[in-house]
Parts: sequence; C-alpha cells; structure tokens
Amino acid sequence: MNFRAEIDVMPLKELLDPQGKAVAHGLQKMNFDGVADVRIGKHITLKISAASKEEATTQVESACKKLLANAIMEGYKFEVIAE
Amino acid sequence: MNFRAEIDVMPLKELLDPQGKAVAHGLQKMNFDGVADVRIGKHITLKISAASKEEATTQVESACKKLLANAIMEGYKFEVIAE
Repeated sequence: MNFRAEIDVMPLKELLDPQGKAVAHGLQKMNFDGVADVRIGKHITLKISAASKEEATTQVESACKKLLANAIMEGYKFEVIAE
Repeated sequence: MNFRAEIDVMPLKELLDPQGKAVAHGLQKMNFDGVADVRIGKHITLKISAASKEEATTQVESACKKLLANAIMEGYKFEVIAE
C-alpha cells in the first residue's frame, strides 16, 4: 500500500529561532502589526510503501529519529495518509 | 482575537528539489527501502491578532505573497486556527 507522510520539524520552543525572529521583524516593518512569535522549521513530504498504515507510521517515526530531525534542537510531528 | 497560522511553503512540483533528493538517498542507504519522492520545504507558524478569522486569513495570505514564499519557486498553503 502507498502512503504519503506530511512531517513538520520545528525548532524546540526553548530555543531561539533567529530565522523566525528575522521574519517577524520583516513582517512588522511591512505593517503586519498583529504578527508575533514567528517560528520557522521544515516541512517534509514523502511517499512510502508499506504493508499497513501502522508499518508506514513506524518507519516514518524511525526516519524522523534517525535522520530528519535533530532531537537536541528540533521536535517533529507527522501524519501518514493512505493514497 | 488571537489566531495561529500554520503555513507550509514547498518547492513547486515542476522544480528539482536537491535537498529532498539527498534525503531520499540517505534514507534508502539506511534501509528505508519503501521511501521515495522526498520533498523539503518550510513550515512556518505565527501568531496573529486580528478582528476576525477572515481578516487574519487575508493578512496571512498577503504575508505569504509578499515575504514568506517566493512564487517563482514555491507554493504555499496555510491554515488559520483560533486560539
């Protein structure tokens, strides 16, 4: 079965996010006054073929831990969708 | 009212995504055999205060067009959630 995974990898809340801060600044200068607390991470999509949704989920979880996210600085969440 | 926007900015389908390709390669070398078609973009979260959900949506749309996404290379989609 084929699945699609939608993964968000974000800097941990405890850490500064200089890229997000720069973008917040930029938006405020462009008169987006109500905007605050911008944080920027990665969005990763991938296709995965696996026997079941559970297996696909296990594989994506493992891929996040081993390669896609750096647990020291980043958290992740994801969704696995049947295609 | 306070809202949170969850924005995905992804490289357009027509374009190569070398970062995604490198990660796909890495995953395959790590025996994630079922994985293909990895694409990597940005995930942006921000807080926004606005009079209504419609106004918040309009502002986020405008921020995407003007700063967050480069329309030549990237597409975006987002969700505005009341907090």
